[in-house]
Amino acid sequence: MNSSPKPLPADLFSHAYPGSIKVLAEVDGLQVPFREVPLTGGEPSVRLYDTSGPQGVDVRQGLPALRGAWIDARGDTVQGERQRDPADVPRIPEGLRRGARRGEGAVTQLAYAKRGIITPEMRFVAAREGCEPEVVREEIAACRAILPANINHPETEPMIIGRRFKVKVNANIGNSAVTSTIGEEVDKLRWATVWGADTVMDLSTGKDIHATREWILRNSPVPIGTVPIYEALERVGGKPEALTWEVFRDVLIEQAEQGVDYVTIHAAVLLRHIPLTADRVTGIVSRGGSILAKWCLAHHKENFLYTHFEEICEIAARYDVAFSLGDGLRPGSIADANDAAQFAELKTQGELNRVAWTYGVQVMNEGPGHVPMHLIADNMAKQLEWCDGAPFYTLGPLTTDVAPGYDHITSAIGAAMIGWLGTAMLCYVTPKEHLGLPDRDDVKEGLIAYRIAAHAADLAKGHPQAREWDDALSKARFEFRWRDQFRLALDPTTAEDFHDQTLPAEGAKIAHFCSMCGPRFCSMRISAELSDAAKAGMAEQAERFRDSGGEIYQKLEG
Amino acid sequence: MNSSPKPLPADLFSHAYPGSIKVLAEVDGLQVPFREVPLTGGEPSVRLYDTSGPQGVDVRQGLPALRGAWIDARGDTVQGERQRDPADVPRIPEGLRRGARRGEGAVTQLAYAKRGIITPEMRFVAAREGCEPEVVREEIAACRAILPANINHPETEPMIIGRRFKVKVNANIGNSAVTSTIGEEVDKLRWATVWGADTVMDLSTGKDIHATREWILRNSPVPIGTVPIYEALERVGGKPEALTWEVFRDVLIEQAEQGVDYVTIHAAVLLRHIPLTADRVTGIVSRGGSILAKWCLAHHKENFLYTHFEEICEIAARYDVAFSLGDGLRPGSIADANDAAQFAELKTQGELNRVAWTYGVQVMNEGPGHVPMHLIADNMAKQLEWCDGAPFYTLGPLTTDVAPGYDHITSAIGAAMIGWLGTAMLCYVTPKEHLGLPDRDDVKEGLIAYRIAAHAADLAKGHPQAREWDDALSKARFEFRWRDQFRLALDPTTAEDFHDQTLPAEGAKIAHFCSMCGPRFCSMRISAELSDAAKAGMAEQAERFRDSGGEIYQKLEG
Repeated sequence: MNSSPKPLPADLFSHAYPGSIKVLAEVDGLQVPFREVPLTGGEPSVRLYDTSGPQGVDVRQGLPALRGAWIDARGDTVQGERQRDPADVPRIPEGLRRGARRGEGAVTQLAYAKRGIITPEMRFVAAREGCEPEVVREEIAACRAILPANINHPETEPMIIGRRFKVKVNANIGNSAVTSTIGEEVDKLRWATVWGADTVMDLSTGKDIHATREWILRNSPVPIGTVPIYEALERVGGKPEALTWEVFRDVLIEQAEQGVDYVTIHAAVLLRHIPLTADRVTGIVSRGGSILAKWCLAHHKENFLYTHFEEICEIAARYDVAFSLGDGLRPGSIADANDAAQFAELKTQGELNRVAWTYGVQVMNEGPGHVPMHLIADNMAKQLEWCDGAPFYTLGPLTTDVAPGYDHITSAIGAAMIGWLGTAMLCYVTPKEHLGLPDRDDVKEGLIAYRIAAHAADLAKGHPQAREWDDALSKARFEFRWRDQFRLALDPTTAEDFHDQTLPAEGAKIAHFCSMCGPRFCSMRISAELSDAAKAGMAEQAERFRDSGGEIYQKLEG
Repeated sequence: MNSSPKPLPADLFSHAYPGSIKVLAEVDGLQVPFREVPLTGGEPSVRLYDTSGPQGVDVRQGLPALRGAWIDARGDTVQGERQRDPADVPRIPEGLRRGARRGEGAVTQLAYAKRGIITPEMRFVAAREGCEPEVVREEIAACRAILPANINHPETEPMIIGRRFKVKVNANIGNSAVTSTIGEEVDKLRWATVWGADTVMDLSTGKDIHATREWILRNSPVPIGTVPIYEALERVGGKPEALTWEVFRDVLIEQAEQGVDYVTIHAAVLLRHIPLTADRVTGIVSRGGSILAKWCLAHHKENFLYTHFEEICEIAARYDVAFSLGDGLRPGSIADANDAAQFAELKTQGELNRVAWTYGVQVMNEGPGHVPMHLIADNMAKQLEWCDGAPFYTLGPLTTDVAPGYDHITSAIGAAMIGWLGTAMLCYVTPKEHLGLPDRDDVKEGLIAYRIAAHAADLAKGHPQAREWDDALSKARFEFRWRDQFRLALDPTTAEDFHDQTLPAEGAKIAHFCSMCGPRFCSMRISAELSDAAKAGMAEQAERFRDSGGEIYQKLEG
């Protein structure tokens, strides 16, 4: 728990996936990471998407700059000093200090895609997703997918967010003013990526917010998202009404120089939307949304993120910072789902998408929240229509309010459904939602629940690679290859531990039953025994029977 | 864990729901149980459906016979000796020994409903569900709902399974040959009902199968289901081919005399269906299905449960044992979902429904299994059509195969969806599914996941009582009534424990934040501060702004 977390091993991959091998496959001239699961019984090994990044790296030095040479080769950025020199920030060690690149114009994957360029990042993504690089370029160029890859975060292994690809999962980490340290947050980052986080949002709001982010970025193999208004608020002493465009702009530039890959911008919370929340059961539940609503009302002015949105685009384009247009008015309870405030903001998000695209900025749209099942489809339909097919990125949605402590489950239900309907990335919810800051165990629980939701969505969408995993595991199960079943599991050690709680003996790993049913009642065993008979003479026997069996059938019908 | 479970307290209700009160409300002349949650802040208390049954009862004496007088008053049954005298069965204590009632003809709730009789059982159900007794009678008479209530299980508190009512949850318990004792299973029963199991299936297959069931029935406030073929198989030494109709019939009568409320009958596994499973990835995964398939093939004969189905109906009608027509050929993997074998059996289930109804026997149909999300709706549609609207009772379905150890989550997703679509009862899946026998912790985890699924389905179906709970909890959350939020939670102690892990101080129970965001970033706090302003002058201010705001909007559009 929070008080005394155990240190994590240097090689987390082997810790999490005993029996799997982390491979760097040579694809299209690139080294692309996979989790490879070797199987017994003459079965071919299975390759799974892997987000864990390089293992055994000293966190005081950071990860290697995989994309460094690719960015340099494009020759459209200049290297320079940072607006805020890392050497001046306490608690950033020397090994993690970097300068910053800045683009001459728009240096975004969207800008390249529109010019017909297939970047190494796009080829890397294609190799991971098992599709042609041209498909990746097309989807980005059409603004239906984003490839978040800040030029100052060369450590990232490129990934893509779009509904034609695998459904992705985001994990939120970050300390709050009440609890946790930098070291714990870096551990949570590593823990999150080994358990399958495709992106990580650093939502730190406490002290050392800038240094914590530096540590996280330099050690993250996945894109990092932030909500810059949080740091801006810290700078003005926590008073929303003291916020200014200038403070926000400086924070945004500093974060872009650090390498943040996408930022939540609550520019669609408009002054005229705020009265629409007055009669809600739970008002405004987004932190960013409530901060900006307070600012708007205090000044009787329109949201400065909206009025300065074009300047924000100009900054973002020069670093390839993608936007996650925030849903500051998302419903925080079943009662408030799909209301006028929520949809007014969504429509505004769509308008802002079109502005961002003219600047070459990649955009996705954030979505709710708390939504009962029967109202979920309407969220997806409206986002597709009003936001012109931009990727949708939803928190859950939670399908009921009554289960604090289990909101990873209330929301995995909604997440799976909306993923199937086309949502490109699912923001996880941990068991601590509404109750406290998630610790490492909670991060894992949240990720497992969301990888289940995302994979269930991939199956339902018919993603060509999705079924292979299920089929390999089910075949191992049916053939009593227990070791293979554990190795292939989303969480191998938990599966094996659960099995061993009742049958710990080594012999049970090859037994043709488990303690759930015991040997006599194991359907899989009986069914396997039937199999030979079935495949040989059964069809013939059944055929013969059908002729006479019609009589019994008629008797019952009468 | 299994090795040394802690003894359970006598009053489990107070243990599970601190701050809630178990009330027996006087409704329509009956004493109807509810969980009442008193709230602070002038809020009215909330009444929730309660399945926990009488607390503090000596398990060696069993629960009071709530329905005894109702059954006697109908005057259509005779009391007599049992075919198998409990005094002759080892490990049934004197306090649990009972005789048996037997009906002269069909003494089923269906038979009464068809004759226009509203029984006390139906009135009890109406009080629990918040509807008119006539609605209950109508739904039963139309065979769209069942009220499982064996005349020899007078301890049961009547409940109903049908899609017009709250979605119900079943918990499977029962020992296997490998592990667990009678005492542990009785504890699991009590544990399951306090955590919201609407029915419990005793799937014991080990030693003491008959005595275990006696203990469970005499202590169960909820209907008990079984799979009689399991006990029949034990009697013939575990060899499926040695089964006979006579052995099965005796077991069925003995279980009916014990008081089993519903039985799974795999009568729809026909010889001609078996070849359809030959090319499956996971063959036949139902224990009952595989046993009967083996019998059919060994004898080259049609399933004896099918050929003797009318005699089974005659027996069931005299005790009001309901049928849960088994899905012995349900898919055990994503690969096998919605295949020819599964649907051939479902069609046969529909034929058998119509036979059972002519005998006055109440029937529901079991459904899968492992089904990806996009194939779920078709299961419900076909069951409605082929089974004439009989209640559907599904296991999950599990929406992916890749997460052993987390199948309560893979399946809660499918369960919520199919519940919304009309499934009347959801058979829970625990984290131990596919791996071992669930212990008490697993039973709770499975139940919580499934009560979430069932409640999410009730919300989506628009059940009139469902929203009240969510709204009360969300209002408490927004108003920082932490104690009320915990009390209203599905699992109050877990919610409070999670909160207290980071903010254990008593003062934090009235704090206007939690450790997730800390005081500065608490959106709920900021939003609450906004509320007064919003309700007063905001609308007017915003109105004024909208006139000038159009200009900014146009600028952005350009």
